Amino acid sequence: MRALQLTEPGVLELREVPIPEIGPTDLLLRVGAAGICHSDLHVLHLPFRIRDEPMTLGHEVAGTIEAIGAEVDGRSIGDRGIVYLCWSCGACRECVRGNENVCLAAGRTAMPPCPGLGPDGGMAEYIRVPASSFVPIGDLDFGQAAPLADAALTSYHAIRGAREHLRPGSVAVVIGIGGLGHVAVQILAATSATRVLAVDVRADKLDLAARCGAAEGLLAGPDTARHILERTDGRGADAVFDFVGVDQTATLAVESVAPNGAYRMIGLGGGAPEITAGPAGGPGWPWGASIRKSYGGTKSDLIESVALAHSGKLRIEIERYDLAAGREALDRLERGLVTGRAVLVP
Amino acid sequence: MRALQLTEPGVLELREVPIPEIGPTDLLLRVGAAGICHSDLHVLHLPFRIRDEPMTLGHEVAGTIEAIGAEVDGRSIGDRGIVYLCWSCGACRECVRGNENVCLAAGRTAMPPCPGLGPDGGMAEYIRVPASSFVPIGDLDFGQAAPLADAALTSYHAIRGAREHLRPGSVAVVIGIGGLGHVAVQILAATSATRVLAVDVRADKLDLAARCGAAEGLLAGPDTARHILERTDGRGADAVFDFVGVDQTATLAVESVAPNGAYRMIGLGGGAPEITAGPAGGPGWPWGASIRKSYGGTKSDLIESVALAHSGKLRIEIERYDLAAGREALDRLERGLVTGRAVLVP
Amino acid sequence: MRALQLTEPGVLELREVPIPEIGPTDLLLRVGAAGICHSDLHVLHLPFRIRDEPMTLGHEVAGTIEAIGAEVDGRSIGDRGIVYLCWSCGACRECVRGNENVCLAAGRTAMPPCPGLGPDGGMAEYIRVPASSFVPIGDLDFGQAAPLADAALTSYHAIRGAREHLRPGSVAVVIGIGGLGHVAVQILAATSATRVLAVDVRADKLDLAARCGAAEGLLAGPDTARHILERTDGRGADAVFDFVGVDQTATLAVESVAPNGAYRMIGLGGGAPEITAGPAGGPGWPWGASIRKSYGGTKSDLIESVALAHSGKLRIEIERYDLAAGREALDRLERGLVTGRAVLVP
Amino acid sequence: MRALQLTEPGVLELREVPIPEIGPTDLLLRVGAAGICHSDLHVLHLPFRIRDEPMTLGHEVAGTIEAIGAEVDGRSIGDRGIVYLCWSCGACRECVRGNENVCLAAGRTAMPPCPGLGPDGGMAEYIRVPASSFVPIGDLDFGQAAPLADAALTSYHAIRGAREHLRPGSVAVVIGIGGLGHVAVQILAATSATRVLAVDVRADKLDLAARCGAAEGLLAGPDTARHILERTDGRGADAVFDFVGVDQTATLAVESVAPNGAYRMIGLGGGAPEITAGPAGGPGWPWGASIRKSYGGTKSDLIESVALAHSGKLRIEIERYDLAAGREALDRLERGLVTGRAVLVP
Repeated sequence: MRALQLTEPGVLELREVPIPEIGPTDLLLRVGAAGICHSDLHVLHLPFRIRDEPMTLGHEVAGTIEAIGAEVDGRSIGDRGIVYLCWSCGACRECVRGNENVCLAAGRTAMPPCPGLGPDGGMAEYIRVPASSFVPIGDLDFGQAAPLADAALTSYHAIRGAREHLRPGSVAVVIGIGGLGHVAVQILAATSATRVLAVDVRADKLDLAARCGAAEGLLAGPDTARHILERTDGRGADAVFDFVGVDQTATLAVESVAPNGAYRMIGLGGGAPEITAGPAGGPGWPWGASIRKSYGGTKSDLIESVALAHSGKLRIEIERYDLAAGREALDRLERGLVTGRAVLVP
Repeated sequence: MRALQLTEPGVLELREVPIPEIGPTDLLLRVGAAGICHSDLHVLHLPFRIRDEPMTLGHEVAGTIEAIGAEVDGRSIGDRGIVYLCWSCGACRECVRGNENVCLAAGRTAMPPCPGLGPDGGMAEYIRVPASSFVPIGDLDFGQAAPLADAALTSYHAIRGAREHLRPGSVAVVIGIGGLGHVAVQILAATSATRVLAVDVRADKLDLAARCGAAEGLLAGPDTARHILERTDGRGADAVFDFVGVDQTATLAVESVAPNGAYRMIGLGGGAPEITAGPAGGPGWPWGASIRKSYGGTKSDLIESVALAHSGKLRIEIERYDLAAGREALDRLERGLVTGRAVLVP
Repeated sequence: MRALQLTEPGVLELREVPIPEIGPTDLLLRVGAAGICHSDLHVLHLPFRIRDEPMTLGHEVAGTIEAIGAEVDGRSIGDRGIVYLCWSCGACRECVRGNENVCLAAGRTAMPPCPGLGPDGGMAEYIRVPASSFVPIGDLDFGQAAPLADAALTSYHAIRGAREHLRPGSVAVVIGIGGLGHVAVQILAATSATRVLAVDVRADKLDLAARCGAAEGLLAGPDTARHILERTDGRGADAVFDFVGVDQTATLAVESVAPNGAYRMIGLGGGAPEITAGPAGGPGWPWGASIRKSYGGTKSDLIESVALAHSGKLRIEIERYDLAAGREALDRLERGLVTGRAVLVP
Repeated sequence: MRALQLTEPGVLELREVPIPEIGPTDLLLRVGAAGICHSDLHVLHLPFRIRDEPMTLGHEVAGTIEAIGAEVDGRSIGDRGIVYLCWSCGACRECVRGNENVCLAAGRTAMPPCPGLGPDGGMAEYIRVPASSFVPIGDLDFGQAAPLADAALTSYHAIRGAREHLRPGSVAVVIGIGGLGHVAVQILAATSATRVLAVDVRADKLDLAARCGAAEGLLAGPDTARHILERTDGRGADAVFDFVGVDQTATLAVESVAPNGAYRMIGLGGGAPEITAGPAGGPGWPWGASIRKSYGGTKSDLIESVALAHSGKLRIEIERYDLAAGREALDRLERGLVTGRAVLVP
């Protein structure tokens, strides 16, 4: 089969490789679509190898069951689904609580095994997955479904964890209207009555945000925090979701979040918010506000994201590419030319 | 009456002043005891005046009702109580939700009016308070009761907000076993089955923590984070309560909190935690962990703190001083010589 | 001024009475609109007097501030607002927590004082209200705003308390699409992605539910529970909101709620659900499901209901009547002829 | 091996049967202890067979791993543990959320498969269990550990779900100080600062409750509700945990629970609480109070119950019997002669 593999740091090749073999608790999926994520760029640019042999990229995978391990119950050949990306231990305290995305077996600051980031991913014709990672999608389009596995999951998780802040009368800021951000705006609109302010450096992204349900778009600039304060009677936003994660967005979040508000860092950049303990006179971090850096989501979050897509309240903006055009799609993503999510179709 | 007043920046004087007059919605209290807090030192050392005229210090106040405003219902002369320190607007969204400690009328990063930090405080023979700030204490000793108004309230609020993290099998770290920290250890022991690890630079404070219910004491040092990780199978502490707030304690919290854990900054120092957005490779902040900087507590928190004291599960370690010895007590606090809480008795 | 007063059990008269006098913590409102509620019928039909003198009905009141008590801050003549209907003590444990609707001063099973149910209500040209009960409405139409005070408040409170059950993929049943039910459907649609099934005995009410955002309407009948189970893969509805409250609706709720689901009784009828403790073999009450009988809502709930109306996501279906036509409007309500909410305009 | 089997309705025999065979995802445990539960009596007295062949009783099982299925990771021969009793599907929405005790695969009102209630249980020398049901216990005594699997799990689950009601100053009532109730009192004392009132018909059970941490014991009688109201300033208990479940205890709960309080039905009897929808004048069910009938608990609850036992804060009162004396032990339980929990030791 064909697979888009990372062979050396920075080198991506479309290679012919054997169809994966599966174990008794696995499934073999024929891939219907695989989404492309900023973290694929991150992996591509790592200066070291994640593993010795070539690795197939792709952690947003939708497909059809082609083969079923002997110990797997409840699945049938031909079932359509997506792959939950936290291949966690299933036995630690957090997994048992349904918090597979912070599986303790992964260690304190690492992530659980993820297809395309260790095990072979889904930018290929077939993928082997643990049966427990399969989430049915019914008749959803594969191209729409694949990005649910990360773009929707990660957005949904961050928003669900902040739902106490999203009551009627609240204001939520979404920074960065890309693959995740434009999904986040829709999830906010579908699951709450919060007023969404979208922030981006590009006007066309703000147009996308408006189509997704944002009440207003703000072009990012030196006055953005002031604009947010003006629209909230000076108290700040009840929740700030930062999908960019650079120093400027961290500063914006600190300067525009409300007392008892929620600042969620979901971006991949590395921005550092300046917060100090202590009384008034500090750098503007209001009392009671919380910061949380979140990774992925739980399997329950994924099931709920799929339900949102089924209800018609979540429609991911996608650009389709052939598997052979994967490198080109990654380049376009890097240059900021992708609107919404790029999806590879084998 | 006598009152301990701040007359110039850094200058504290015991002065003879008139007994306060009260308005129709106020109470006049005869002070039974007034606690001394690190934030009194903070105010004393401010390089500017908080207000033009001399200001009586003291925001931990217990006393007896001596006079009642005409519009006040439900209170009687002789009722004993303490003073809730957030004299908030009562009408904003947060006050209506019972979050008076982040009253929006105070502005985004400031605190609501507080006796001894604007209005005259309780280091005096009498104090005027809004009737809505009075919380009955029954027959509790005034010396025990006064520190409930801040030392217990502030600790209780931070712990209550983290209660999801304090299930059986969890580990909580308390950094700094002073006026607040030794109360926090007791509140954790009384309201949860978490295992408390106490951290301090002084062995006698760790002894106090042990008497308060800590399972173990750790002398603060370069290996403290490692010791916490060893005691938690490498995952870190489910909650870290930092009552010190310097760079070293912020670093300790970042390095020792668990995934999905809670780091609460309650100290007054100004330490800055180093957190960056982004994937693994960051400075050790685990996924899903949250930081929150909390101020005071709600009136409901104060009522519950009083209930804890009534139940016998909370006993504040106090040193009593005469009102005239207030300056001396503040000096001892500054030099770290006070065990538990210093309390002035008029 | 004119006032619609209950003079004897069952006797309603439009009388000329003095404009109310206000105390130092009160406001005088010129009434802009007053909603008519099923509980007004309930009061009308009580076989005894609630108080000796004639009592003005009306607990859904919108109006303009005409006079302000001497001790009231932050309000101005001409401010427009509605009246929060729980005139609670403000000092008990529940009031301090923001749960004014279960104020302990009212006693264990009674309700706090409410205009039109003890104090004079708003079916008049003027009303005296405690200043703390005034909630601003900005430029909302009075006819739209008045029903927020009960029809929206009560619905919103019941729904907010069940929000954990209303995740994407969930199903919520609303029984009774009257004054409260048609508002509940809109609140569910605005604040969650739950799929709403509306149940009523009349097809035109189901049409109203559809306009309000219900996914489907079910004419109430012997098979309704079966229909709900069919639409939920047999598990039942995640939440059932019963705005009718007769034995049939109680039975429907018991037979159609899901394990761990929520059954909320908001109706006024008196239906009794049949539940027994104990293992399988009982009358069909699933494990983990909860019942709660709720009254009114908190002041925070009211502020959030007003915010929903401001956002355009909540539009109450109203029929306007002159104050003099109050008796006629009540009769129409009793005969089920009112669509949405009847509102009196003085 | 020897096994205590139900061969006909009402007939219990100690039989010699083969050691169970295990599949690739199973474990074989050598039983160290098996607790006896009231539900064993319930099963014994069912007038029909649960399955055709004889069935080994016992759903509270502790033991040592003797054999491991080929697909099982992370377990070793000799590991000591207990068996989580909900052998749920692991894939439905509720299982994925960590709510295995309301697994939807079991149907709307039934319970998931449970050892001793379908599959063979643990009143035998060996038991086959799914590897996912094994929870490690370290060096806990088997006799202490076995009852954690149900007596502690079920109590812990009901209490955890009511934790919002158990703040300092609250009052919790525990009705029935038997195998579950005496554990519930300890869990309340260990995890909250609530004041526990124990209710039982026998004075020796109240003595047991006092040793477990109850503040006061009330002999059940016609005045019990009044006594509870007297001890709560008339508001009622914040939480009522009913481990008996007959009409009298249901009535007691309805008459003694507070507004916004929690009534949890955990008993097996079949008592029916009388609740009606509607306004004041109903049978005493206060506004905002909730009823929930709970079954078992989640696997996370079990892990937390084990942690409580490890911490020394939970010590189950047990009577040990030889496997051959199982019938005698059941008889003593039925006659109310067992203090705490009876445990069979093979």
